[in-house]
Amino acid sequence: MKISVKVPATTANLGPGFDCLGMALPLYNIITIEETVLPGTGIEINVIDKSETSDELMIDHMPMDENSIIYKAVELLYNSIGQTPSELKITVQSQIPIARGLGSSASVIVGGLLAANELLGHPADVVALLSIATEVEGHPDNVTPAIVGGLVLTSQEEDGSIIYRKLNWPEEWNITICIPDYELSTEISRSVLPKEVPLEDAVFNAKRLAMFIEAVNTKDDALMKLALQDKLHQPYRMKLVPGLDRIIENLKHEEDVLGCVLSGAGPGIVVISKKNNLDKIKSIIKDTWEDINVKVNITTLPVETKGAQILTD
Amino acid sequence: MKISVKVPATTANLGPGFDCLGMALPLYNIITIEETVLPGTGIEINVIDKSETSDELMIDHMPMDENSIIYKAVELLYNSIGQTPSELKITVQSQIPIARGLGSSASVIVGGLLAANELLGHPADVVALLSIATEVEGHPDNVTPAIVGGLVLTSQEEDGSIIYRKLNWPEEWNITICIPDYELSTEISRSVLPKEVPLEDAVFNAKRLAMFIEAVNTKDDALMKLALQDKLHQPYRMKLVPGLDRIIENLKHEEDVLGCVLSGAGPGIVVISKKNNLDKIKSIIKDTWEDINVKVNITTLPVETKGAQILTD
Repeated sequence: MKISVKVPATTANLGPGFDCLGMALPLYNIITIEETVLPGTGIEINVIDKSETSDELMIDHMPMDENSIIYKAVELLYNSIGQTPSELKITVQSQIPIARGLGSSASVIVGGLLAANELLGHPADVVALLSIATEVEGHPDNVTPAIVGGLVLTSQEEDGSIIYRKLNWPEEWNITICIPDYELSTEISRSVLPKEVPLEDAVFNAKRLAMFIEAVNTKDDALMKLALQDKLHQPYRMKLVPGLDRIIENLKHEEDVLGCVLSGAGPGIVVISKKNNLDKIKSIIKDTWEDINVKVNITTLPVETKGAQILTD
Repeated sequence: MKISVKVPATTANLGPGFDCLGMALPLYNIITIEETVLPGTGIEINVIDKSETSDELMIDHMPMDENSIIYKAVELLYNSIGQTPSELKITVQSQIPIARGLGSSASVIVGGLLAANELLGHPADVVALLSIATEVEGHPDNVTPAIVGGLVLTSQEEDGSIIYRKLNWPEEWNITICIPDYELSTEISRSVLPKEVPLEDAVFNAKRLAMFIEAVNTKDDALMKLALQDKLHQPYRMKLVPGLDRIIENLKHEEDVLGCVLSGAGPGIVVISKKNNLDKIKSIIKDTWEDINVKVNITTLPVETKGAQILTD
C-alpha cells in the first residue's frame, strides 16, 4: 500500500504571534509512505528537492536516518497503538525550501503522520495528530496550520492538548514571501532568544497580538500597521538576518505596507501590504538585500485555506 | 458657570489584558467644576462619598490639595491652551469605591478634564483628552473606557498618542464584581511587579489576550475559559489579596464560571460566568472570604456602553 499526502508550507509568528500564530501557504511538500514488499528492509527515507530556490543541492540537509523528524513522528503514531514501524519507504517531494522559515520541518512531520495514520486505518483523530506533531516539532504554530489550513491562533495547553481557532485573513491584504539564498536553522535562531524579557516588552507584544486578531477580524488597516511589531523574538534574531533592519526601515515610508516581519525563525521575511504598489515593494526588498550580496526569491501568495490532503491516485 | 460630568467606574486588565484592556461599569462618580464668583479664592476640592460600601469615612483618602490628580488633569488642560486654572470649586460625588480596583482615580481625572474642557469651550478633542488623562493616570486602560465607554483594547504608542478599539461584550456573559472591605493602593500593587518576566510567561499572556479578543468576537465560551488567565501581574499580586487563590480554586469546579480575575490592581475581583447559577457563585466567594474575615460586596453589572457624559441641568 502506498499513501501520498500533500502538505502546505506555513509561515509562523507573523510579528507579534511568537509561537502561536501560523498561516498555511500554497507551496507544498508531498510525502509518500509505501509499505515495502519484503519484510526486513527497514525504513528508507528519500528526499527529492523540487523547490524553485534550489538546484537540488539541498537534499543532503534533510536528515535521512531513523532519527529524522519524519521517522520520529511516524514512530510515535505507531507506538500510540502499540506497534513499531518497519518495512516503510518514505519519499518527500519537496517544494518548500528548507531552513528558510517556511515550515519545511512541520510539513514533513505532518505528511509522515497523516500518511501513516491512513496506512493504519485512522487510529488518530485531528486532536491526537496535532499533539504528536507538536511533540516532534516543539511548538504548534507551524504544524497546526499545516494540518488544518488557513490562518490559525494555536496553543499547547498544560495538559499537552493543542487548541486552535481559524481566523479569516482579509482578501484585501497581500502576503509577499521573500526567501533569501541562505539557510538559518531554527535551532540557532532559537538559541539567541533570552530566557527573560522586560515586563513592558511582554505587555507590548500582548497588545500587538490582540491588535492583530482585532485587525484581521475587522479588516482594519491602521490597526494592522500597529499590530505587526514584535519585541519578543525579532530584535534578538535581527543580527542573524542581515539586511532585515534596513528592509524594515526602507519599507516604512511605503504607505501600502502594513508590516514586514520574520517568517517563522527566519531568514525568510513576510511583507503584508494593501493590494497596490507591489512592484515598488519588491524592488525595495531586492535592492536592499542585493546591496549586501543576498539574492532573494520574492513571491506574493494567497493563504492556503486547506490543510494537508491525502492524495488519491 | 458650573459643569457636572458623570463618569463610569472601570475594571481593567481582565486577566490577560494587563495595562491594555478595560471596561466601563454602571457605577458613577459625578465631578462638578464651578467657577467661583470672587477672584483670589483659588481651587477648592470637595469629595462626598456616596458609595454603598462605605460609611462616608473614605472621604479623607481622596487627595484634597492642589496636587491631587483632579487638579493635575485640569491644570494640564488649562496649560495646553496657555492658561492657568484658578477660582474653581471642584466637587466629587463619589459612588465608586476608592482603591478597590474600579478606576476611581481614572474617573475623577476624566471627570475633571471633561468638565474643564466644557468650561473652556472644548479646546481638546477626545484624542487630546485621552493623552492628558493617560499622562496623569500613568496607563490608558482605565481612562479610555471611562471616556469612551464599553469594553476597550487600548494602548499608548511611543509618540504618546492613545489608540483604542471598542469590542462588543457578549450579552450571554455575566460580569460579577466582588469588592472586599479593605483598600489596596495601585502604587503598592504595582510595586510588587517584576521588571523582567520569563519569555514563556510573555508568550502565555500574549496567547491568552489573543484568545480573549477572539472569544469576545465569536462568543466562544470554551475559548474564554482558556483566555481568562494571566502570568504577568496576578501571580505577583496574589499575596496582596488574601483569599483570591482559594476563590479561584473553589470556582474552578463551577461549569458556568469562565474565569475569576483581579479587577485592575485589586483587591476587587471580577467573575465572568454564563447566565446561570449566580447564587452559587456568589455564595462561594462570600464564604471563602468570610472564612478569613473579609467582608465582600457582590454585584452583577452589565457593561456601561456609554463613556463620561456632561450632565445638563
